[in-house]
Amino acid sequence: MGSGRIRVGVIGLGTIGRRLVSAVTSQPDMVVSGIGVRRITPFALASRRVGHVLFHTAKCGDAIETHDGDDYAGGLDDLLATSDVIADARQAGLGATFIPRYRRSAIAAVFQGGEKASDVDCTFNSFVNYEAASRHSAIRITSCNTTGLTRVLTTLHREFGVDRCDGVLVRCSTDPDKGNNGLVNGAAPTLHESHHGRDLREIAPELRVYTQAVAVPMSFSHVQALTIQFKRRVTAAAIIELLENTPRIRVGDHTYGTTTGDLANYFAYTAEPRQSRGDRIEVFIWRESVAAEGSVVKLITSVDMQAITIADTVDCIRRMKFPKLARSECLLETDRNLGIAKQPELYRHVGVERAN
Amino acid sequence: MGSGRIRVGVIGLGTIGRRLVSAVTSQPDMVVSGIGVRRITPFALASRRVGHVLFHTAKCGDAIETHDGDDYAGGLDDLLATSDVIADARQAGLGATFIPRYRRSAIAAVFQGGEKASDVDCTFNSFVNYEAASRHSAIRITSCNTTGLTRVLTTLHREFGVDRCDGVLVRCSTDPDKGNNGLVNGAAPTLHESHHGRDLREIAPELRVYTQAVAVPMSFSHVQALTIQFKRRVTAAAIIELLENTPRIRVGDHTYGTTTGDLANYFAYTAEPRQSRGDRIEVFIWRESVAAEGSVVKLITSVDMQAITIADTVDCIRRMKFPKLARSECLLETDRNLGIAKQPELYRHVGVERAN
Amino acid sequence: MGSGRIRVGVIGLGTIGRRLVSAVTSQPDMVVSGIGVRRITPFALASRRVGHVLFHTAKCGDAIETHDGDDYAGGLDDLLATSDVIADARQAGLGATFIPRYRRSAIAAVFQGGEKASDVDCTFNSFVNYEAASRHSAIRITSCNTTGLTRVLTTLHREFGVDRCDGVLVRCSTDPDKGNNGLVNGAAPTLHESHHGRDLREIAPELRVYTQAVAVPMSFSHVQALTIQFKRRVTAAAIIELLENTPRIRVGDHTYGTTTGDLANYFAYTAEPRQSRGDRIEVFIWRESVAAEGSVVKLITSVDMQAITIADTVDCIRRMKFPKLARSECLLETDRNLGIAKQPELYRHVGVERAN
Amino acid sequence: MGSGRIRVGVIGLGTIGRRLVSAVTSQPDMVVSGIGVRRITPFALASRRVGHVLFHTAKCGDAIETHDGDDYAGGLDDLLATSDVIADARQAGLGATFIPRYRRSAIAAVFQGGEKASDVDCTFNSFVNYEAASRHSAIRITSCNTTGLTRVLTTLHREFGVDRCDGVLVRCSTDPDKGNNGLVNGAAPTLHESHHGRDLREIAPELRVYTQAVAVPMSFSHVQALTIQFKRRVTAAAIIELLENTPRIRVGDHTYGTTTGDLANYFAYTAEPRQSRGDRIEVFIWRESVAAEGSVVKLITSVDMQAITIADTVDCIRRMKFPKLARSECLLETDRNLGIAKQPELYRHVGVERAN
Repeated sequence: MGSGRIRVGVIGLGTIGRRLVSAVTSQPDMVVSGIGVRRITPFALASRRVGHVLFHTAKCGDAIETHDGDDYAGGLDDLLATSDVIADARQAGLGATFIPRYRRSAIAAVFQGGEKASDVDCTFNSFVNYEAASRHSAIRITSCNTTGLTRVLTTLHREFGVDRCDGVLVRCSTDPDKGNNGLVNGAAPTLHESHHGRDLREIAPELRVYTQAVAVPMSFSHVQALTIQFKRRVTAAAIIELLENTPRIRVGDHTYGTTTGDLANYFAYTAEPRQSRGDRIEVFIWRESVAAEGSVVKLITSVDMQAITIADTVDCIRRMKFPKLARSECLLETDRNLGIAKQPELYRHVGVERAN
Repeated sequence: MGSGRIRVGVIGLGTIGRRLVSAVTSQPDMVVSGIGVRRITPFALASRRVGHVLFHTAKCGDAIETHDGDDYAGGLDDLLATSDVIADARQAGLGATFIPRYRRSAIAAVFQGGEKASDVDCTFNSFVNYEAASRHSAIRITSCNTTGLTRVLTTLHREFGVDRCDGVLVRCSTDPDKGNNGLVNGAAPTLHESHHGRDLREIAPELRVYTQAVAVPMSFSHVQALTIQFKRRVTAAAIIELLENTPRIRVGDHTYGTTTGDLANYFAYTAEPRQSRGDRIEVFIWRESVAAEGSVVKLITSVDMQAITIADTVDCIRRMKFPKLARSECLLETDRNLGIAKQPELYRHVGVERAN
Repeated sequence: MGSGRIRVGVIGLGTIGRRLVSAVTSQPDMVVSGIGVRRITPFALASRRVGHVLFHTAKCGDAIETHDGDDYAGGLDDLLATSDVIADARQAGLGATFIPRYRRSAIAAVFQGGEKASDVDCTFNSFVNYEAASRHSAIRITSCNTTGLTRVLTTLHREFGVDRCDGVLVRCSTDPDKGNNGLVNGAAPTLHESHHGRDLREIAPELRVYTQAVAVPMSFSHVQALTIQFKRRVTAAAIIELLENTPRIRVGDHTYGTTTGDLANYFAYTAEPRQSRGDRIEVFIWRESVAAEGSVVKLITSVDMQAITIADTVDCIRRMKFPKLARSECLLETDRNLGIAKQPELYRHVGVERAN
Repeated sequence: MGSGRIRVGVIGLGTIGRRLVSAVTSQPDMVVSGIGVRRITPFALASRRVGHVLFHTAKCGDAIETHDGDDYAGGLDDLLATSDVIADARQAGLGATFIPRYRRSAIAAVFQGGEKASDVDCTFNSFVNYEAASRHSAIRITSCNTTGLTRVLTTLHREFGVDRCDGVLVRCSTDPDKGNNGLVNGAAPTLHESHHGRDLREIAPELRVYTQAVAVPMSFSHVQALTIQFKRRVTAAAIIELLENTPRIRVGDHTYGTTTGDLANYFAYTAEPRQSRGDRIEVFIWRESVAAEGSVVKLITSVDMQAITIADTVDCIRRMKFPKLARSECLLETDRNLGIAKQPELYRHVGVERAN
């Protein structure tokens, strides 16, 4: 395997795991060294049919179950032995319990936003602390909503200076593949401050972002309604121009869709961005929603919770293994391979850059 | 009929009309003089069974349809002749087309928020311009979301001085009885400023309120997530105390329900407030959601779009006919009869009072 | 308390418990002796405000928790001491674990359809085995869907002879007050035979009923689409006439509503039946859906899963304590008090009558 | 263009039109000669970016609108001039109004199931009347639900003899890209016999199929719960084996998904079938749901309403232009190019073959 390619072991074939397998496969400098699963599902079988190798990684230290024995190339130890990095996409909260194991094997691991900040070395977002990836071995990526918020706010802050942002996140109560676990006919507000703004403040304390969240009966991408107070007067036109010229942000008007379902359809049925299955790695911002009055701007975004963090995860893996690689090069490489690249010069400055 | 009671002709037996019939019936100084309908539905039949008289009011000037002739006590003219006030709860936009007719008959009419401000003499909210009701003959009540917003913000403004409010309204895409006309699996943001804040600014220009709205697949009461900037430091405790001591506002914690569906159940199954069918005329505010930091307060409310404007409509009708009646007396009377009264002294000062 | 009234202890204030409290209260020969709850919720407080006495019944044998001590009139022992019958409406599966306790106290108990048939003495439905109630002390009521199916099929069978029925139940994935625990955008079929037909065959083996079930994202009453093969030719008119003249069955046309949401609204907003809150204890059958061709009839019903079993539960309690009471008298008494009675002579023959 | 390839003009870029463009493009013996649209949407732009030519086909005979003039290669006349067949996927009911126009141009046209049977020459389904395609010039494909039903029932009938089938279709109330036009929290039964069984009986009168339908708040594939009475005893194993060995039918167990949302995910995220975007052209049948008792079989299917008719449409186009082409060859060719082919010998006998 390999000849210098980063060998990535992906654990879990859920919403995120499936997309990580595709995303890693799309990167010429990476290879999926194996996929860790708990049991042989049609998903797992389909993955094997296209050439992936399956490992049994159900529980730390478990023996491989006999009756399925011949289906697996090995257990977790075997997957670790053949990988340079683990992308652990197990269900929320489970991944972090494997950190001691990964440390013993001296293997770096990337987790998703479902893990707790306190369980990992670092919370990572490519628009905030890209360089940190090379200094830690157990890293979680910011959650989907926080990732979207971060891209927009760090971009606006760098250029115009954000004084404060108050956001309301209208959230899917479940993912499309977990439809039997959601809300029916009602909204469930998060009664205290939602974690999203707080998470962003933790990695970028200069951003005063405060969020409320309301879960609703849908499973197609979140909506964020933001009120942003700038330090000076701004115009909607200037905001739109900046966002249009920022990687991983997509500005579109109502013809792309006036509901999040329409949006999902748009991305599933057009040739660009070239992500299959309608995945939308970019944050979408409705152009018509951007309204400025004095120094206050309102805008509405849509975040595909299934796909948005994939780009940051790929960046993180690459930086872990190439600790000298510049952010602009790394992100451009990721985006080219994911089919969402904008012009190279737009990658020169993105978000903020912090040292933590 | 009568002996001094206000004779109210209710037109329409939809979401609002049905509730107006009940609400007017509950007021000892009012009587439903007749119900105007387009056709004999089970709703209409049930209303007649409990003693109401039906009139045929399908289209301005229409003759009563022959085949249903014996079912009706008369047409629109007959209903007007027997009424002091018309509460017109036809579908949005239709009511206002009857204003010339009402003026010809010199009868005052109250409309709901679906009519346009420009089509009526005045937009009415009991917490803002109660006295205006006696100076106009074609009045619309503020819409459900605006009514909720108005109660909360005028109350807070009078006591603490609101500098600015930014709100996001998570809206039902349809009413419970129009379930075949709503959203499935997706959110539909209003891409420009929603009318709610603007409507409130029009009747109370001192309140700088700006709203965004997102419709979602539900039919049980809206949710409002507000960020309120006060002119001075405030505490959550002071805010909560004030709201608890304000008529038509209900502060409750998560045990009342953590979803809007739970809330609806709570109000349907407890003896207080005594509205049947789970109608919630009060704005509900989750106590846990009230958070203050310096001069900024966040809170989350829930508005039962089917019921909230009923109280204001009853107030408006009474003030139209008793132009000397003080606001405190009128609102207390309404609330007592609706079963939602708080202590009488709390009615002394509510909202603001403007002259328009 | 008392003077001959049946003292009913209701345990649980969920979807069913709340309705049982109301239903028992409405029966002049019964009284709610107390309500057993796990903790003091707004529901519990509201119940106490209207005069009910609360008991702490969290776990079998538990001491009453000190910090709440003064809120309760006692524990489970105290509730048993003051009751003649227990209506146990705890969450599904929990109630039956208390059967040994109830037996030790020699108190009869009625459970809901969430308990397993094998855990109780008898599964009860007023249209099938009314008399059995006086011979057992731990009885469960048939589940909501089975209760609806039973009323319709035993009625048709008695009159016309049903050879076989194949039904598909389109089920709510959750109740209105448990909205955060249901399906989003998708259907979940029960892959094997659903229990409903099987449950009915167990208590009425002469009825060959086979059901499939599909859960969907809604919380307002189930829909049943039935194909019934009779032993002889029948007409839609004869079927309709029979169903119209059967207690606890309500035949209505599309003007009552073309969606189950509309139906719920109808029952919430008309004066008949006189159940508050829109509860529909009767099975609803759309008249237009009844179609006969030769000996095969198709029809579509709607079952309010929150309310339909309440009538049978009340019947069961009464028969337990008045073992000589005729079915026709008992059911008529229940229905009169619930506000859904039809003419007395229609109660003479209902459903079938089995001895088990 | 061309060299013998069938030039297909696709009109409309909605749910079906988008898929037809992809499907025709995937067939080496066909080419999309142009796409007819009403206005330049992001969908249309994306189609042009990948090389398709846009024509303005808004209304029969309309001049091309000036302001968009340079965006279109021409109008409807121009599209007809460059096409051998028109695949008209306009909104339901509109397509048929163009039939006179197509006849004047002597061009064959294929419509979707939204058009009325009485407006076209023939209703087409590859499993019933494949050969008819070469005898008519205005043909509609059976609707999605009917197509699914037809595949399953003609297959079972040919092998085992179906006496009668009673089906209940649990339908999506809207498509994913029309989410703002569906049901919220309720079911809407079709009160009379649904058209699906009747449509099938019209093209295959030997099949006694009767259907009821219930629309529900979802947009991901329909569910069909069937009761099939055979002329002789059958076993579930034999049924399953037959279905597994039939083209365009896919038998899978619960690990593919226990909800239709899960299923959609499965097909979106595995490499087989190789349709992008999760389209499922095959009818899915849950293996566990197939239950036989004597001569009666029950089973549950899922039909992706967006994709299932695409295969039949491609077959129809090919047969129209190659009137000697055998069904087995045509269907195999279609399926190979769509990535859903089974072994060639399984195409020898499919469904029934009627002459109408």
